[in-house]
Amino acid sequence: MKPDDPGRKAIVNISVESRLLGENDLLAAANRRAFNRRGLCVLNLVSSPGSGKTTLLVETIQALKDRLKCAVIEGDQQTDYDARRIAGTGVPVVQINTGQGCHLDAGLVGGAVARLDLDGVDLLFIENVGNLVCPSNYDLGEAMKVVVASTTEGDDKPLKYPAMFHNASVLIINKIDLLPYIPSTLAALKDNALKINPSLTVFEMSCTTRQGMDVWCDWLLENAQQKPAS
Amino acid sequence: MKPDDPGRKAIVNISVESRLLGENDLLAAANRRAFNRRGLCVLNLVSSPGSGKTTLLVETIQALKDRLKCAVIEGDQQTDYDARRIAGTGVPVVQINTGQGCHLDAGLVGGAVARLDLDGVDLLFIENVGNLVCPSNYDLGEAMKVVVASTTEGDDKPLKYPAMFHNASVLIINKIDLLPYIPSTLAALKDNALKINPSLTVFEMSCTTRQGMDVWCDWLLENAQQKPAS
Repeated sequence: MKPDDPGRKAIVNISVESRLLGENDLLAAANRRAFNRRGLCVLNLVSSPGSGKTTLLVETIQALKDRLKCAVIEGDQQTDYDARRIAGTGVPVVQINTGQGCHLDAGLVGGAVARLDLDGVDLLFIENVGNLVCPSNYDLGEAMKVVVASTTEGDDKPLKYPAMFHNASVLIINKIDLLPYIPSTLAALKDNALKINPSLTVFEMSCTTRQGMDVWCDWLLENAQQKPAS
Repeated sequence: MKPDDPGRKAIVNISVESRLLGENDLLAAANRRAFNRRGLCVLNLVSSPGSGKTTLLVETIQALKDRLKCAVIEGDQQTDYDARRIAGTGVPVVQINTGQGCHLDAGLVGGAVARLDLDGVDLLFIENVGNLVCPSNYDLGEAMKVVVASTTEGDDKPLKYPAMFHNASVLIINKIDLLPYIPSTLAALKDNALKINPSLTVFEMSCTTRQGMDVWCDWLLENAQQKPAS
């Protein structure tokens, strides 16, 4: 095969991609061992930009504060706005800015964990960069991926971006308070998600009206203490 | 430098990335020359998933149908739902499914153009994969990038995902009909976008109520016939 053969380029690119994912998986496994040693439950929150992940975290942390000790790693391309919102709740938080990067990886998370005071923490949330595509491929060492889909994004997103819904264990349907004003339906969104991944645990919620927050918090109380990373 | 030195790996990754972007730029330049030869105005629509790009296209095509001949390239990870919605308007359309891919690139667009009947077409819309990060780096040969931001995503997105707003020429703020029901404000969203890119041309719109559609369509009529890819 000549050096400029298009087939050769494809092979080079695939092998680089495989190597990067391989390195990530090794680091993710190390993160997972460290989380297990601490008895820490780690949830990786993924979604489109603006689905309401940070508001979900603020409301969840406040609802659980007397029962479960939380910490947060915040991922964004730029700004520390989200970390500052989380810091307002009083829990430990570290911001990662990915710059041009479109997702967190296990190495970035390992570095952030080293900067967090995890003493007595039961539950660590990782808020990924808002991106419904790339973060689906990157294991961070979490116990599970929680995908947040807002009703305003339309009910066809699980079918159009299936990898994320396939790789998640939990689906939070957020902004259900806006359903009366939009053409999408809750039933279609849920049906489409379950077509991609029938084993999803689904919560219906509005983080602004707090509808559905109790059911989610009860689930966290039950699961965060029983399910370390596996 | 030893083969396993982390510095060496970084250099290898950067050079592969640069080469891929370099190849894309060559193909984008070829696309741009072909678009110019045809006197075709090409707009690359970028946004988060669910901002309303396809509804915007359907409404725009129908509003312009007696005055401007349009065609569409649809990009999605999976499904041809969007292409079928566009086909309902009667204009030529080609669907690209990126599979695991998170953005369109100039090679994919060049291949799609070859499958489109562009006879007499004035305006070609490329609807990119819903992703506010990765498509910002990929020139497709378009005259300009049009970023669509829905009010429901929150007014801080231009600051958190600045590259896309920096690289776009036009911002469409969509779903303004939902402003009474959400905490974000139109003024803050516009201010934040203009902080990142003061030269953005901004349209305020609701594709479901059609508010603001006339101003956008007038701008297209004026600009699509005057501004080929440059």
